[in-house]
Amino acid sequence: MREALKEAEQARLKDEVPIGAVVVKDGEIIARAHNLRETTQQPTAHAELLAIEAACRAVGSFRLEDCTLYVTLEPCVMCSGAIVMSRVPLVVYGAPDPKGGTVDSLMHLLDTTEFNHRAEVVSGVLEEESSQILKDFFRELRQKKKHEKKERTSN
Amino acid sequence: MREALKEAEQARLKDEVPIGAVVVKDGEIIARAHNLRETTQQPTAHAELLAIEAACRAVGSFRLEDCTLYVTLEPCVMCSGAIVMSRVPLVVYGAPDPKGGTVDSLMHLLDTTEFNHRAEVVSGVLEEESSQILKDFFRELRQKKKHEKKERTSN
Repeated sequence: MREALKEAEQARLKDEVPIGAVVVKDGEIIARAHNLRETTQQPTAHAELLAIEAACRAVGSFRLEDCTLYVTLEPCVMCSGAIVMSRVPLVVYGAPDPKGGTVDSLMHLLDTTEFNHRAEVVSGVLEEESSQILKDFFRELRQKKKHEKKERTSN
Repeated sequence: MREALKEAEQARLKDEVPIGAVVVKDGEIIARAHNLRETTQQPTAHAELLAIEAACRAVGSFRLEDCTLYVTLEPCVMCSGAIVMSRVPLVVYGAPDPKGGTVDSLMHLLDTTEFNHRAEVVSGVLEEESSQILKDFFRELRQKKKHEKKERTSN
């Protein structure tokens, strides 16, 4: 999760919402990615989805059966879906996402009999750090917007 | 939907499960794609996801607010998620997917108050054709496998 947090930091440096993910197989990181939605203008450029795609390239298969996905924020519906599609057996996340998380918060998409795959989930790992980097990012964003508004008003 | 079916046919020619999608804006097709999961070995290479990504490249934004997505099969959880993330307001699909569809069959992910976006859905458009191309594909696949098994047994 420390490595996923490093990825989140990479996102922050690009003015992206700081979320990072890594995929581990046999104790080694085979893929790492961070949120790139704004940079790429792609709704699919979430950290988890990009990390899953990179991991599939690394193993040469769309099945990630022996892999663990670490991600700093609870996955959304699209990323939960990508976890189901790639059969990731274990997902470890940091902070919960009460507004968009579909693993524990809004739904339990990784633990439903509806799909042909269920993943084990460990939550709250480095939760404080995973959450703090997001809080700092949004506080700075609000301050920046406030400052811009002030500038516009004074001109 | 005829154009989405043409995309499904393209998938079939590549031995991919024949599912096709197009994105329409202002009466024009701005993106088209077909399932490429086997070819790319990417769990994310579903027709809808690829079409949404191509449409975002076309409009230069991760928001597809004035677009309609046409797809031959009811979207899965990952693709329903991508529809939510890209704010596609209208989704038209052909055949239902009782095993994996999360628009009407297993869940109603495009019509839930849990997310910050809901999409209007029209189902059953060219359902017969959208369903038939899938049935033919899986029948041929079964025959091929049966034939291969026979070959192996006789050797």
